[in-house]
Amino acid sequence: MLDWFYITDLLGVAVFAASGTLQAFRKHMDGFGVVVLASLTAIGGGTTRDLILDEPVFWLHDPIYFMVILAAALATIIWLRFKAYIPVNRLLFADALGIAFFTVLGAEKALNVGVSGFTAVILGTMTAVFGGMLRDVVAREVPLVLKSELYATTCIAGATFYVLLQPFSANLAMAVALVTTFSLRMLALRYHWSLPVFSDNQDKH
Amino acid sequence: MLDWFYITDLLGVAVFAASGTLQAFRKHMDGFGVVVLASLTAIGGGTTRDLILDEPVFWLHDPIYFMVILAAALATIIWLRFKAYIPVNRLLFADALGIAFFTVLGAEKALNVGVSGFTAVILGTMTAVFGGMLRDVVAREVPLVLKSELYATTCIAGATFYVLLQPFSANLAMAVALVTTFSLRMLALRYHWSLPVFSDNQDKH
Amino acid sequence: MLDWFYITDLLGVAVFAASGTLQAFRKHMDGFGVVVLASLTAIGGGTTRDLILDEPVFWLHDPIYFMVILAAALATIIWLRFKAYIPVNRLLFADALGIAFFTVLGAEKALNVGVSGFTAVILGTMTAVFGGMLRDVVAREVPLVLKSELYATTCIAGATFYVLLQPFSANLAMAVALVTTFSLRMLALRYHWSLPVFSDNQDKH
Repeated sequence: MLDWFYITDLLGVAVFAASGTLQAFRKHMDGFGVVVLASLTAIGGGTTRDLILDEPVFWLHDPIYFMVILAAALATIIWLRFKAYIPVNRLLFADALGIAFFTVLGAEKALNVGVSGFTAVILGTMTAVFGGMLRDVVAREVPLVLKSELYATTCIAGATFYVLLQPFSANLAMAVALVTTFSLRMLALRYHWSLPVFSDNQDKH
Repeated sequence: MLDWFYITDLLGVAVFAASGTLQAFRKHMDGFGVVVLASLTAIGGGTTRDLILDEPVFWLHDPIYFMVILAAALATIIWLRFKAYIPVNRLLFADALGIAFFTVLGAEKALNVGVSGFTAVILGTMTAVFGGMLRDVVAREVPLVLKSELYATTCIAGATFYVLLQPFSANLAMAVALVTTFSLRMLALRYHWSLPVFSDNQDKH
Repeated sequence: MLDWFYITDLLGVAVFAASGTLQAFRKHMDGFGVVVLASLTAIGGGTTRDLILDEPVFWLHDPIYFMVILAAALATIIWLRFKAYIPVNRLLFADALGIAFFTVLGAEKALNVGVSGFTAVILGTMTAVFGGMLRDVVAREVPLVLKSELYATTCIAGATFYVLLQPFSANLAMAVALVTTFSLRMLALRYHWSLPVFSDNQDKH
């Protein structure tokens, strides 16, 4: 179970690194800008979580994470040089997979430290969305996660299931949380769901 | 004493959460954007302080903080839907109260860890102003705190009194620091005081 | 050796504080904005490194750092008031010196904690470039370090030499790393080297 989880975690890192590379591409950044944006996106969420939990930062003693980031950034650059277009659909699919795993990982790590279920939901969501937020802040965009279709809400839903189902079965909790986050995100993308909190006022300003 | 301080701390969190919600409103963000901006504003300063002091992050084992943030954000949203205007004066009053308490809390926590009085002033000020700075950076504004009337300088003054009066009486130090920060801030707002460091050069560029 | 290193570290802090002050000047910020930008630039990189390494933050029990920052910011402000121009060449020289020392310091501290050489290179580079990145993000610029001539790449080269030469001699490693970072940076500035990763595509967007 652990190894499989580790591999999926690295897959999530790779996908997020690719999304950081695309942002760097759009902003005409050079080689190092690519590496920084790819890294911030891929490990920014988990690093913030570990700092707040006062746990060892997960990539500090495992260089594999940075190698995956470099490989994913390189692959994305090569792709962009040979193909003119960006396969948005496939990326969004991979991104939905990535946030599902990051949410579960973050909530799990928080529960292990002994915080309340409520706080574990916050830290799971933070793990999934902070990386993309850092990416957009550094690239001078209003963070996508603060504007787009239910991005974070799917993480909150997934993390909540993960926490609530823990008493029954850890594996069940994980499975339901992954499926919930992933499929809510895909549905939100397909049907352009959004949270209309301020939408009525939008035209007045 | 402690309970009263805790309640005022939560009041400060509520006020800062409301100010984050207003920023999200101005930027047309959705529900999650509201929660993120409200949270960053309300707990960003204290979280940074705790990370630097290597103390447990204050909200990690106390879910009340996030509940207060959610309640304050919700109340602000409801207010904005029913009333068309924002009560700026009342908000600035509450904000001045909030930074006064955050300054004292931050300086106190820093002194407890055993840093010098000078560094305690820095950490007190950081507690009060970092949240608003994070809010503005994420919302793509030049941080208000870096531009507005003596915002941070009032915190520095309050924290300095707090540190200098410690040898005489902890309660006196606290009272003087609170009153200093709060009233300097209100006076600065009323009379548009500012620090004119670069004002002479402003027209040349 | 240690004292000399400490002094050069403070020199690096002073130079970075001056560069933060110049950014605040360009953005018409007031006195506190100057102090914040100067501080973020000067100690942002080292603070992030220490948080990630879970080491005590280097300035927490040594107020000298902030005094150097305040002195450097003040000197820069006085300079700007009396002289109308900014001595860019001399600043870039001092900046190249600063990043050389910060890179070596960061890599050394990371190796002491026991991370791999690969991760030490990342943390050395992070120490040198994160401060300037924070400065630009807060001042709402696309970070210079993500766009300019080989800025970070010179740090990566220097840190790599530092790590690879450790088995032979710590002093040799330090000397080679310093000279490499510094001279690569000066050469990159002089001949406008850049990493052309995305340059072919730049005209298409």
